[in-house]
Amino acid sequence: AVMMHGDFISQFPILPLVLLPKVSLSKTPCKADVDYFFFFFYFADLLPAKNGEEQTMQFLLEVVEILTNYIRKTFDRSTKVLDFHHPHQLLEGMEGFNLELSDQPESLEQILVDCRDTLKYGVRTGHPRFFNQLSTGLDIVGLAGEWLTSTANTNMFTYEIAPVFVLMEQLTLKKMREIVGWPDGEGDGIFSPGGAISNMYSVMIARYKFFPEVKTKGMAAAPRLILFTSEHSHYSIKKASAALGFGTENLILLKTDERGRVIPADLEAKVIDAKQKGFVPLFVNATAGTTVYGAFDPINEIADICEKYNIWLHVDGAWGGGLLMSRKHRHKLSGVERANSVTWNPHKMMGVPLQCSAILVRERGLLQGCNSMCAGYLFQPDKQYDVTYDTGDKAIQCGRHVDIFKFWLMWKAKGTVGFEQHIDKCLDLSAYLYNKIKNREGYEMVFQGEPQHTNVCFWYIPPSLRGLPDGAERRERLHKVAPKIKAMMMESGTTMVGYQPQGEKVNFFRMVISNPAATRSDIDFLIDEIERLGNDL
Amino acid sequence: AVMMHGDFISQFPILPLVLLPKVSLSKTPCKADVDYFFFFFYFADLLPAKNGEEQTMQFLLEVVEILTNYIRKTFDRSTKVLDFHHPHQLLEGMEGFNLELSDQPESLEQILVDCRDTLKYGVRTGHPRFFNQLSTGLDIVGLAGEWLTSTANTNMFTYEIAPVFVLMEQLTLKKMREIVGWPDGEGDGIFSPGGAISNMYSVMIARYKFFPEVKTKGMAAAPRLILFTSEHSHYSIKKASAALGFGTENLILLKTDERGRVIPADLEAKVIDAKQKGFVPLFVNATAGTTVYGAFDPINEIADICEKYNIWLHVDGAWGGGLLMSRKHRHKLSGVERANSVTWNPHKMMGVPLQCSAILVRERGLLQGCNSMCAGYLFQPDKQYDVTYDTGDKAIQCGRHVDIFKFWLMWKAKGTVGFEQHIDKCLDLSAYLYNKIKNREGYEMVFQGEPQHTNVCFWYIPPSLRGLPDGAERRERLHKVAPKIKAMMMESGTTMVGYQPQGEKVNFFRMVISNPAATRSDIDFLIDEIERLGNDL
Repeated sequence: AVMMHGDFISQFPILPLVLLPKVSLSKTPCKADVDYFFFFFYFADLLPAKNGEEQTMQFLLEVVEILTNYIRKTFDRSTKVLDFHHPHQLLEGMEGFNLELSDQPESLEQILVDCRDTLKYGVRTGHPRFFNQLSTGLDIVGLAGEWLTSTANTNMFTYEIAPVFVLMEQLTLKKMREIVGWPDGEGDGIFSPGGAISNMYSVMIARYKFFPEVKTKGMAAAPRLILFTSEHSHYSIKKASAALGFGTENLILLKTDERGRVIPADLEAKVIDAKQKGFVPLFVNATAGTTVYGAFDPINEIADICEKYNIWLHVDGAWGGGLLMSRKHRHKLSGVERANSVTWNPHKMMGVPLQCSAILVRERGLLQGCNSMCAGYLFQPDKQYDVTYDTGDKAIQCGRHVDIFKFWLMWKAKGTVGFEQHIDKCLDLSAYLYNKIKNREGYEMVFQGEPQHTNVCFWYIPPSLRGLPDGAERRERLHKVAPKIKAMMMESGTTMVGYQPQGEKVNFFRMVISNPAATRSDIDFLIDEIERLGNDL
Repeated sequence: AVMMHGDFISQFPILPLVLLPKVSLSKTPCKADVDYFFFFFYFADLLPAKNGEEQTMQFLLEVVEILTNYIRKTFDRSTKVLDFHHPHQLLEGMEGFNLELSDQPESLEQILVDCRDTLKYGVRTGHPRFFNQLSTGLDIVGLAGEWLTSTANTNMFTYEIAPVFVLMEQLTLKKMREIVGWPDGEGDGIFSPGGAISNMYSVMIARYKFFPEVKTKGMAAAPRLILFTSEHSHYSIKKASAALGFGTENLILLKTDERGRVIPADLEAKVIDAKQKGFVPLFVNATAGTTVYGAFDPINEIADICEKYNIWLHVDGAWGGGLLMSRKHRHKLSGVERANSVTWNPHKMMGVPLQCSAILVRERGLLQGCNSMCAGYLFQPDKQYDVTYDTGDKAIQCGRHVDIFKFWLMWKAKGTVGFEQHIDKCLDLSAYLYNKIKNREGYEMVFQGEPQHTNVCFWYIPPSLRGLPDGAERRERLHKVAPKIKAMMMESGTTMVGYQPQGEKVNFFRMVISNPAATRSDIDFLIDEIERLGNDL
């Protein structure tokens, strides 16, 4: 027994539709009217339902009202970053917020309530005091771009169904390659669902370049191939080595200096060692902006070694790539133009909404060669337009989400200079934080010297630990400080910052700044909050 | 020299801001006012700019006005599906629509114009007469869900920053597993960026289950592993075999019957053959709803063979999985509960906006075991909440887009029965099309009998070819008919339907119906249009 609109309404013959309050696009009705209105409407009353236009527009406008209220609050420092609840609490149903799915439809009123509740119990990642991840902030133009993208609801695989987006992607990738420093922006690239997949592409392409027969014959057709990356690099390189059939043991971890930067001599020694064992060094990943320390590996020195031994050089600039937009900071990626491939995530340092990650490849044709399977049903060679614009056969995906539009629109709206300003401002803010705490009582820096990126890594030492000598007891107690402060921070909902151990180092805070809404006062607030919560530990 | 809002305005001292028309949220201003208003505002005037709230709300409402107009037109049959232009025409700049990125910011007025132009030159995938892909339609509640998702702009990797979405994913995956038929919905799963990646997961997990040492030692640690899939299956299985280091030659293609369904005896013969050669049959993909014919492989018979030889059985239900929601049609996937893993894309047959694809795994722990790298910076074991809710280490991605919310919200709004009705309606429509053309003059069916899914594959034979005997000339001429009609269709913009060759068969039309807006009149229109455009070929 399925209840459709018609049936439903017929149960209420005394409430004919004409008596329902009519609201038009040109004015927002008062709240009570809206709820009353939607109580009687269901999914089946929306477009494409006959005469569904009025309800559809009302419903969407009401959703937008919820979203704009959320946006207002997101930027309001008097609101909390989050209203934390444990999984079991949310699963039990907070104040009627029922996550369970049911067989029968719910009214549009309930759907709107669900939207409000979803936002209420979520985390405001755009809040000026949200510092928890590399991707923070809520860019308004980027958001508008995402709303449009969802409305267009298409797929990047062919020009046929995404003509404008395909061209935007092509032009934007070219621009990014120009900024990397490849002559005339030549080369290739694609937007992928995140930096991990972009990095996976780089390993696949490197293998295809040197051992194309692996595509057809598998890893058995190649000698034992060795990949290199630093101890501080992102775990996606390790995931790629496992997934693509290299094996994590054939990924050699390189030593870093105290700042988390690869020691080139260690790379060369390990390359020589691998060769002496009869293995083939295939691929080196240099990180431009490590996840925890924000370190930039010395690309030029690594490139020298890669050229000497004929190894593919990939630069993982997922986090640090954005600095290429800044005339002041791009020197940190000096040598990036010598890379064979580059990962660059605009959704991190450039503030583009999630997801937006690019893999750029210097040599044209490899992406296609590596991934093409020539599916006749999708990529017909006899179409009426120039089918070289169909991108699907370059990808490991088939359908591919439109990630380009929000980025393109932001670039239009900010200009290259707008990104530059944003990046310079974030780095200034992190310098402010560093200078504020480097000599402050109760703080110890995890590494010495001004950070290269916006990552500021530090321990907060509560008064009770300040007199303790270095040793097992202090380490053990210090290890618990950051998790405790973070837990209290989340319970109080005032701010969020990440922590983690690294190698032998016990848990420390990793502060990162990519949020365009953050100011010095928010940095001050964070430090006050850490001290308020941690003072008595 | 960076031009920011302040500088810009200072060039127009005779136009003080107070003279600009003020418009409040409670009424939509007339068009001319809006353009005038935004001419003087830039990106830098939006939030988080001080006092940026008013402009931000105005800007977003204006974007919504553009989007709701687009939505209205999308469902209006008197509008075109697309306004086709060749790549070079769009690149040259249609009526001032400039795709190039520049150094300096553009006014918000220009940004709004860019939004309108982007939609104008795109393809209305929600139009009732858009039949070109497996993913069609514009679901209003799903769209609202996407708008909210973009506004929340968070990441699925931890409960910490996506508590509600993580739980929604968990509950929805469990519900899907129940529908697959696994006891109590037990098992595991994750939403991935599309069916190709979901299928790639299945191959990775199968390898991990039988040869876990490949994760650390690479493919060299395993014997020669063989994968099986049908000639009609999706090319993503081939992509996975190349990417993951198996090699496409170790993917054995299985023969199908005339309807595109795997012949189980051929599978068994090829399994035996592989074993006799000393290879190890690892993985069989059975397709539930092939891309072109919409064929359902006989899962039970395939499962018998997989059990007999201890082979992983994956069901690729990217396209056909939706039929599990229909009591009338789910028998076509009979035996799916015997699969070890299942791909199911709600963004296809269930009308969820792109992207929304799930990989479901019967055995719990394999996803985690296969992909976990225990990145300390992200997945701290000493968090204050139950960290088993952190999903990131199950994924090959690090950051992961929130694909769940729109689907969850649609399920709430439609109920299970709403999906069932949608699916039954689409299959009824395809039966209508099949019955309309199966004996109609000028049509030949590509395979005989009622289609299993909504795919109806047919040739249109123009009058000039109807008298020709079967042979090279007819084949050659017929091969060109569908591309020509499709090209004219796109030029006129009235409807869109796909075509392709398949094996020895020359180009034919593949009609698919997943669009909730489509009705019998739209099917009639498509046939009229094919005849109108093809009559004189």
